[in-house]
Amino acid sequence: MKALNIGLLGCGNVGQGFVELVRRSRSLVESRAGVSPRISRILVRDAAKVRSVDGAEVVTDSDAFFHQNHVVVVVELIGGVEPARTLVLRALESGRHVVTANKALLAAHGGEIFSAAAANRAGVGFEASVCGAIPIIRALQNGLIANRIEFLAGIVNGTNNFILTAMSEKGLTLAEALKEAQARGLTEADPTLDLAGIDAQQKLVILASLAFGRAPDPASVHVTGIAEIDREDIRSAAEFGFVVRHIAVADARGGALDLRVEPAFLPKSHPLAAVRDEFNAVLVRGDAAGEMIFHGKGAGPFPTASAVLSDVIDVATRPGGVPRFDGGPLPASSVEATAPFYLRFPILDVPGAIGLIATALGNHDISISRLAAVLDPARPGNGSVKVQVHDAPVNRLRKVVAEVARLPIMAGKPVVVRIV
Amino acid sequence: MKALNIGLLGCGNVGQGFVELVRRSRSLVESRAGVSPRISRILVRDAAKVRSVDGAEVVTDSDAFFHQNHVVVVVELIGGVEPARTLVLRALESGRHVVTANKALLAAHGGEIFSAAAANRAGVGFEASVCGAIPIIRALQNGLIANRIEFLAGIVNGTNNFILTAMSEKGLTLAEALKEAQARGLTEADPTLDLAGIDAQQKLVILASLAFGRAPDPASVHVTGIAEIDREDIRSAAEFGFVVRHIAVADARGGALDLRVEPAFLPKSHPLAAVRDEFNAVLVRGDAAGEMIFHGKGAGPFPTASAVLSDVIDVATRPGGVPRFDGGPLPASSVEATAPFYLRFPILDVPGAIGLIATALGNHDISISRLAAVLDPARPGNGSVKVQVHDAPVNRLRKVVAEVARLPIMAGKPVVVRIV
Repeated sequence: MKALNIGLLGCGNVGQGFVELVRRSRSLVESRAGVSPRISRILVRDAAKVRSVDGAEVVTDSDAFFHQNHVVVVVELIGGVEPARTLVLRALESGRHVVTANKALLAAHGGEIFSAAAANRAGVGFEASVCGAIPIIRALQNGLIANRIEFLAGIVNGTNNFILTAMSEKGLTLAEALKEAQARGLTEADPTLDLAGIDAQQKLVILASLAFGRAPDPASVHVTGIAEIDREDIRSAAEFGFVVRHIAVADARGGALDLRVEPAFLPKSHPLAAVRDEFNAVLVRGDAAGEMIFHGKGAGPFPTASAVLSDVIDVATRPGGVPRFDGGPLPASSVEATAPFYLRFPILDVPGAIGLIATALGNHDISISRLAAVLDPARPGNGSVKVQVHDAPVNRLRKVVAEVARLPIMAGKPVVVRIV
Repeated sequence: MKALNIGLLGCGNVGQGFVELVRRSRSLVESRAGVSPRISRILVRDAAKVRSVDGAEVVTDSDAFFHQNHVVVVVELIGGVEPARTLVLRALESGRHVVTANKALLAAHGGEIFSAAAANRAGVGFEASVCGAIPIIRALQNGLIANRIEFLAGIVNGTNNFILTAMSEKGLTLAEALKEAQARGLTEADPTLDLAGIDAQQKLVILASLAFGRAPDPASVHVTGIAEIDREDIRSAAEFGFVVRHIAVADARGGALDLRVEPAFLPKSHPLAAVRDEFNAVLVRGDAAGEMIFHGKGAGPFPTASAVLSDVIDVATRPGGVPRFDGGPLPASSVEATAPFYLRFPILDVPGAIGLIATALGNHDISISRLAAVLDPARPGNGSVKVQVHDAPVNRLRKVVAEVARLPIMAGKPVVVRIV
């Protein structure tokens, strides 16, 4: 059986999962793909920390990693931009294929990496960079190749979805739910990238690049995290018949591309409303295929390793899979989009606050369909006004909310949640 | 731009959809894949019936179809076993790749076709043969290549799912629901293949071949259709908190392989319970990737054409995708599987029928968790006894039901529905 030699960059949790999966799935892969995957060399910072290497040589120096070897595919599982970027480019320039799970690297430098791959006739696999083992990258690259993508919406951050599920189903506060997510190993060392929506933003940039054939500027994504969502919002959602989910959306239906990451109220019957805990799902609508939904585990060492190993076999045995981009930036959405919204204004316990807020909205022709105030005279500074508005022009609504946020009656940042 | 010349066998509804999709997606495919797909020749029985050909030459003779051309990929959209089988083999023997949507052909002659392809170094694409545009074939062939598949369950027949949805949500009889499905063009000319579960059986054989690396004998699939399901069963399901779905299952968890197509009661929270109308979904569990669900349109000219065209580009630009089978038959399930069941016995209005049925079950140690009798003295011959049983050994239960079916109290065929 022909050996398929792999070089591995980084050997943390996911790397160890990959080493283990290569070992235990070897005979299965041999019978299915006709090649025998072997990890021949691993580059790490601290060789003492590597637990299992399955016969690979462990090195701590990048020159030693690239020196005289038979590696056909380099797998990058370091994460972050540097030194991952430099090492990936070096691998491509030496004619190796690259497989990476690194969403931050691809969102920031995808164009550079794909150009280097094309110039060196190498392949780049990155299924694991978005939604773990769910084959959404392959679906966009191959399965939907003859489809104009109209719309894409996903729950792409398992940590945030776990937190929102726990808040809604167990009545936890965000801090308590975050602690539970941390106890289960679902978070990064610093949970800010998840909570603030940066992780989802990076994944959306990758998905949109494939769906629309051009790499969007990450700054063109409107990003709102979940840090402001509190139990009151979860309760309001339930009361109005909705479920709160943190979703990443690429919407090309308005003639331009609207990219956003934000908490949203979804009707209970919405397919993404059923996605619970740390699961991920992506809904994609193509003009020929119609609407499809992909659901599964979005993270974890083995789901990630499963996607990485499938990419390794793919790039090594069926080369030629580098995405083509026109290169130019996509037009930002010029249409004045409208949507219904839920708003919560934390207010000091000031009489007249309801009137001020309602007047501000009314002055901009934004009509209120529901308003509820929680005003507790015994606990000043703890009130809130919750408003549901009809189809409102999105930009105008954001402007009014920013205006209201500056009023002296406010006790905190307003919460703005789209209703899907 | 390099032309990708396609020969098309058959030009009915799906074929016309394919011709149309090749035309309208051409510039998109050119920019994404770097090749320009063209249909250069079409073989049909009656040239007068072909509406749109997008510049292709239409022939009615297979020698003329294969004579002197630049066709790289032959697309087979005739359906059924012959003449499709002969034409597909001829295409492969002439060194062309083949793409087919033909589940009947692959379920019966997949081994022969894949061997011919391997012998001629040609590729075979068949994404469209199961669940239309849903990329479940690719997921099993590529995305999950490093996974031992433990379990697979799908709603793979949109017609039956439409019928069950309409019966449950609109209170229609099976005959009325079938008529509505026919009015919407969701059925074949002869709906028996759908209703009896043959279509689902063929798709399950294809999925199981890929998941388990060996082609199972279609006769090893336990097949029950939906023809016996009536409104009373739908009502009972709702009453007990379930939804009726017609599912195809390949279960390898017992050490052997259990293949079945059958109506089942699913808890409302089951992911397949949410699949409505003519939609399809497949749930697959791999040891590394965990559980994934793929949901989308399983049929229709454009979803099918979308899958066919993606396969055409795949086999032409990245050849080498023929599944490998060990060839030997899979061991049939030897474990005595158990499951809870819902049973309905249509009975003549005979006093004592309840006792006879309960005694028969009791004699075989099958314990009843619920029993309801609908006995109408005014309308003899219209009664029924409905029973829910605890975890019962499946084979023993089937034997008892067959025994009861022979009793003179019976007014019709008993209905047996697994509870998942």
